[in-house]
Amino acid sequence: MNVQKPGIPKGTRDFGPEEMAKRNYIFDTIKKTFELFGYQQLETPAMENLATLTGKYGDEGDQLLFKVLNSGDFLKNIDQQDWIGGSGQVLPRISEKGLRYDLTVPFARYVVMHRNEITFPFKRFQMQPVWRADRPQKGRYREFYQCDADVVGTDSLVCEAEILMMIKKVFADFGLKDYTAKINNRKILTGISEVIGAQGKEGELCVAIDKLDKIGWEKVKEELASKGFSSGAISRLEPVVETQTADNAFLFDFFRSFLAGNDIGLQGLAELEEVFALFGQLGGEEENIQFDPVLARGLSYYTGAIFEVKVHGISIGSISGGGRYDNLTGVFGLPDVSGVGFSFGVDRIYDVLEALQLFPEQSRAQTKVMVAYFGEKEKLEGLRVLGALRKAGISSEIYPELTKIKKQFNYADKKNIPYVIVIGSEEMEKEVLTLKSMKEGKQETLGLEKAIALLQ
Amino acid sequence: MNVQKPGIPKGTRDFGPEEMAKRNYIFDTIKKTFELFGYQQLETPAMENLATLTGKYGDEGDQLLFKVLNSGDFLKNIDQQDWIGGSGQVLPRISEKGLRYDLTVPFARYVVMHRNEITFPFKRFQMQPVWRADRPQKGRYREFYQCDADVVGTDSLVCEAEILMMIKKVFADFGLKDYTAKINNRKILTGISEVIGAQGKEGELCVAIDKLDKIGWEKVKEELASKGFSSGAISRLEPVVETQTADNAFLFDFFRSFLAGNDIGLQGLAELEEVFALFGQLGGEEENIQFDPVLARGLSYYTGAIFEVKVHGISIGSISGGGRYDNLTGVFGLPDVSGVGFSFGVDRIYDVLEALQLFPEQSRAQTKVMVAYFGEKEKLEGLRVLGALRKAGISSEIYPELTKIKKQFNYADKKNIPYVIVIGSEEMEKEVLTLKSMKEGKQETLGLEKAIALLQ
Repeated sequence: MNVQKPGIPKGTRDFGPEEMAKRNYIFDTIKKTFELFGYQQLETPAMENLATLTGKYGDEGDQLLFKVLNSGDFLKNIDQQDWIGGSGQVLPRISEKGLRYDLTVPFARYVVMHRNEITFPFKRFQMQPVWRADRPQKGRYREFYQCDADVVGTDSLVCEAEILMMIKKVFADFGLKDYTAKINNRKILTGISEVIGAQGKEGELCVAIDKLDKIGWEKVKEELASKGFSSGAISRLEPVVETQTADNAFLFDFFRSFLAGNDIGLQGLAELEEVFALFGQLGGEEENIQFDPVLARGLSYYTGAIFEVKVHGISIGSISGGGRYDNLTGVFGLPDVSGVGFSFGVDRIYDVLEALQLFPEQSRAQTKVMVAYFGEKEKLEGLRVLGALRKAGISSEIYPELTKIKKQFNYADKKNIPYVIVIGSEEMEKEVLTLKSMKEGKQETLGLEKAIALLQ
Repeated sequence: MNVQKPGIPKGTRDFGPEEMAKRNYIFDTIKKTFELFGYQQLETPAMENLATLTGKYGDEGDQLLFKVLNSGDFLKNIDQQDWIGGSGQVLPRISEKGLRYDLTVPFARYVVMHRNEITFPFKRFQMQPVWRADRPQKGRYREFYQCDADVVGTDSLVCEAEILMMIKKVFADFGLKDYTAKINNRKILTGISEVIGAQGKEGELCVAIDKLDKIGWEKVKEELASKGFSSGAISRLEPVVETQTADNAFLFDFFRSFLAGNDIGLQGLAELEEVFALFGQLGGEEENIQFDPVLARGLSYYTGAIFEVKVHGISIGSISGGGRYDNLTGVFGLPDVSGVGFSFGVDRIYDVLEALQLFPEQSRAQTKVMVAYFGEKEKLEGLRVLGALRKAGISSEIYPELTKIKKQFNYADKKNIPYVIVIGSEEMEKEVLTLKSMKEGKQETLGLEKAIALLQ
């Protein structure tokens, strides 16, 4: 047999025990909040029909889909003519399936397929990997998890208020304090662009303003001018730019007058005020929540609220985002399904919690106690102790082969096991155990029942 | 935009909220036991290099691997000559990656890649989907989860005893009583075939005996004869067949004399007796555990213990299995890594728990209470109540839009939500709530704090 030097595809990762424990802490924390708010879990297959995926993510997205080769003799439907036509012509004949690119399109597909069984409004969450044939780089992978919650089948703004509540709960559970959850409304952006006389240009407008901190207002003005904004539009925009550090109450006042007479802008503002009111009614506190009138993302599909969360003091971009859409399922034949969704970026949250040392100690080791022993007779006694520990629900293990006590302790140490029970001939004679705390180094001699009570 | 009728690839499944709740109950139950025994979780990428996967599962397995098309212009390395050579010649030039076919090969690949960081003995569990281009049929899918636990880097029989303990714990947690966990040892099979004079034919021998219940001893003898077993071998085998319903103690006695003089067979028997002794020392009780001297599976890789679990009273085949292997990682350049592993069949366990109605009620609904209301004013009060419920950790929701109370109740009913809090004008005036139990139909009027205490 040839010996192979093993590797994994670029842009993919193995998650070993310590990373898994931390990742599970993140997933469990988010899931607990989703469930507290009545969201139900959905899982869809890794492979979707290419017909479901293609055309949903733009031309670039189509390129980045991983395609799965048809089984069997995949060339059987190809003739020389196809082959001369190149990859584009051959592809549809040799591949019918692709790997999930995000969780939104499979969700839309699911909603349409199951519309007659689903109880609307449908609150679903989904935590599954997605695959993109992107060029791998630091922080960008070809396989990564998404963690989405969406409510569809209602346009009630209660849902937006609940999303703000969920963000606050998740970040509080993580012990993350220095963050801003920004909220805006697509209609306000439309209103601003109409009021300054640059209708339909809200995208370019926001891209330019986003650079304000880095390059200053003079350079932003230059960029806007180069994008075809008139000098009148730019000067009419100036008061908006000056609100950048204002608080929510000021901003609502400001935009009531700035958008006066612009129906769509005022509607967006009213929706946003309603979201804040409902959020307050749910017991939400505005700390960390910021109305950002130039927050823009997903302008091609979001039609109402837009969300984004940034953590301060760490350079990592946004770690969560979402918004309201009007037409999730139209492409699959079910028009007018409105919904609002939100996604937590698991990989970035991982990096943030790691950088800020916010992973709790107990997320690192799951075995609470290891049983160590000096000889074969002590090993048998150790197994008896082990059986009792597990019966009491205490996660525990034993080094399976008789070996030097130092090697056994080394094993416990490397696995971050906080306690070791030592069984020697003296302990057996006296029918006691030695329980050692690996962290503090101190040990005590006691009976099995007492040890179990202590470890529980 | 064209409207598409959506579907999913054949052999794949969506898991909606109710199925997910039940599946999570299965995963959580198994995971809890794995962790209680000190196993740590591992996750590997869905895609592996084809070089890692190919040649590991036999020719049929190679055919059943899902291959992923290279990104970009996948035909660029193909010339006419390749194309004429057919699929076999084209494949390696257009595809370098495949989907995971099982969890064992990726685990072996992981162990070799990370051998310098891993603390041996390495106890890992893994719960991830695998993909096989099998012809889909009832109970056989192209995407399904495996749920594996393995210990590698030790040949201590403590590991086998722990696997028996884990099986008993998991099945007890599921409330499954009528099952048999069978255990055998590969070396006993070798010994039997040597003793009867049919060396190397243990596979055919076991396949034939496996049909004993269905076709009777006469027909089994015919099959054995047709497979080239001599009449002497068959008659020497007869006493083994007659032990089929014997208990463990009898079997150990019987095989001590049957295998007398056969070193390998006696070694297997001694190992098995040791496993039972260690199992007893761990507090294990032999009920449901059966030494089955003709249990055979994985004969091409198992070298010691062989496990299999069958549930009685339901026609579903084995729902779990495993065994000890000597050479997990040799193909990746790391020889002599012994280990023992065990796999729970999630889909079959699901079917069994469903058929026997063993899913606990609470695995079906996660929202504990819904807040219903009669008008806009009551909705605001409802949001306040909802905020308080969630703050107290009670999973709860509100129908987001004002609608008929009947529709709100219908929503709670369909989602299996066990309690509804009703807020009407009378309740608001008296500062109370009506708490209704959906199951028993009875309701009471009480204050918010008392309702929270009751729901907790």
